[in-house]
Amino acid sequence: MTHPIRTVAIVGGTHGNEFSGIYLEKRYREHPELVARSSFSVRTLIANPEAHKANKRYLHSDLNRQFRTKDLTDPSLTNYEQSRAKVINAELGPKGAAKTDFIIDLHNTTSNMGPCLILTQAGAVYNLLAAYVKMKMPSAVISRDEDHFAAEDHALLCTVGTYGVIVEVGPQPQSVLRQDVLEQMHEMTQHILDFIELYNTNQLPELPKRTPAIRYLHSIKLPMNAQGERIGMVHKNVQDHDYEAIHPGDPLFVLFDGTVLPYEGDTVVYPTFINEAAYYDNNLAMSFNEQVWIELP
Amino acid sequence: MTHPIRTVAIVGGTHGNEFSGIYLEKRYREHPELVARSSFSVRTLIANPEAHKANKRYLHSDLNRQFRTKDLTDPSLTNYEQSRAKVINAELGPKGAAKTDFIIDLHNTTSNMGPCLILTQAGAVYNLLAAYVKMKMPSAVISRDEDHFAAEDHALLCTVGTYGVIVEVGPQPQSVLRQDVLEQMHEMTQHILDFIELYNTNQLPELPKRTPAIRYLHSIKLPMNAQGERIGMVHKNVQDHDYEAIHPGDPLFVLFDGTVLPYEGDTVVYPTFINEAAYYDNNLAMSFNEQVWIELP
Repeated sequence: MTHPIRTVAIVGGTHGNEFSGIYLEKRYREHPELVARSSFSVRTLIANPEAHKANKRYLHSDLNRQFRTKDLTDPSLTNYEQSRAKVINAELGPKGAAKTDFIIDLHNTTSNMGPCLILTQAGAVYNLLAAYVKMKMPSAVISRDEDHFAAEDHALLCTVGTYGVIVEVGPQPQSVLRQDVLEQMHEMTQHILDFIELYNTNQLPELPKRTPAIRYLHSIKLPMNAQGERIGMVHKNVQDHDYEAIHPGDPLFVLFDGTVLPYEGDTVVYPTFINEAAYYDNNLAMSFNEQVWIELP
Repeated sequence: MTHPIRTVAIVGGTHGNEFSGIYLEKRYREHPELVARSSFSVRTLIANPEAHKANKRYLHSDLNRQFRTKDLTDPSLTNYEQSRAKVINAELGPKGAAKTDFIIDLHNTTSNMGPCLILTQAGAVYNLLAAYVKMKMPSAVISRDEDHFAAEDHALLCTVGTYGVIVEVGPQPQSVLRQDVLEQMHEMTQHILDFIELYNTNQLPELPKRTPAIRYLHSIKLPMNAQGERIGMVHKNVQDHDYEAIHPGDPLFVLFDGTVLPYEGDTVVYPTFINEAAYYDNNLAMSFNEQVWIELP
């Protein structure tokens, strides 16, 4: 083991209307014994408190798209979320030389994704973590999201830490707190903390050599007309079927006039974030992924 | 038949982030043949366009709580939704002497309520409508909501018409458009229009003498502390189980410390709007209802 993990931050409310992380952060803040372990310190943070007060995802721009290194050092970016990003970078980072070794950023989706652990970088620690979490929580899905980006080009909050992951749990409507979703988020967070403790103390159990995962390819948009108005929606065969294979020719969208648009790619893809509410403003329909394996030596 | 129904209004977007009605109104506006019938005229309306542009339920206050007769005539009520209510009352009403005989107001809920037809008043036309819709669409639930209020004390938009109903379909997260939910809303709206046509032309088929329905009793709040902060949430046994009986002693809430709070009433109740996202600001947990029958002579 080369780098023990000595400082951990648990972040809720990066999006102000994703309630599970906001309530879980509060619970951990009031009961630090729930997240305390012997080999590292933990702090918690509500990342976007003003968006939460307004019951919105964000006030001016999506906070979880503000953490590219060049943006964090650009003094011309001054709106609320751009300012919060700089403050969080100072508190938990600075990115590239962070005082925080591991960031756990808690998110909800309205999509039917269950408990999903999103890894933004490749590397031995991430592979061990993925194998451990999947072994302890078989319902978890491991997602490699944009691991083809260099860390400095990543816009996500969790990339401010030396290591960082997203705990993404759904389906949960915005501004709702569901017991089942909260419990799944708590369970996954506990497994991550346990993993760090075992990793630091060199006590990891034997882990599976191969762990199934998905890897992000690209996002696709809803059907729109030349004026940018939506002219269709996600086909009901796809709705709620996150992670299930879409084959060439399968129904993908249905236009409001009833016309069905098939998937026109030539490879099988696995969708995530299907019809996510937060994408109302950029007309994203879903993300496409491939199936991969995470291999341990 | 005493009063034929000659003018019908179909209203979407009374809440700006309930997308099914907003898209259905647009479709009906662009394809009026979908709602045209021989015996009445139809107009459509987006009630709260600024809230929709802001992707919010409302800007200043809930539009669907602004239609009490005394509020509509109170010049001191001037915020955006209070102003929209006065304009809509002038366009479709005035309440109590309306130029619109029948208003269909299209709504979504994040709760698992399926297609629900909400009646706000009692009376022979409502009873016939309920029997017809339930016969044509067995998955529909008929809800008598606050039928113990006089019409002038009703705050709902649909009460501006001589007759008015709410088509309430869920579950759908705010700011999401689901094909299945849109189809259910379209189907129920079509049944209502067909009913009006058959009623006007004295061609109603034989209808069931008894139609099951629920009747609103009262709403209950989430557990809160003295500071008004939520200290618990809807129990997972109740979540998504709209319309299913809650018996005295059944789990109702779970506090964040794990304590289960049972239902403490002494009669069986049937919940609706369980954990509805829009009630984040007033901490409502759900509505309680009783089972009733709608009887035809």
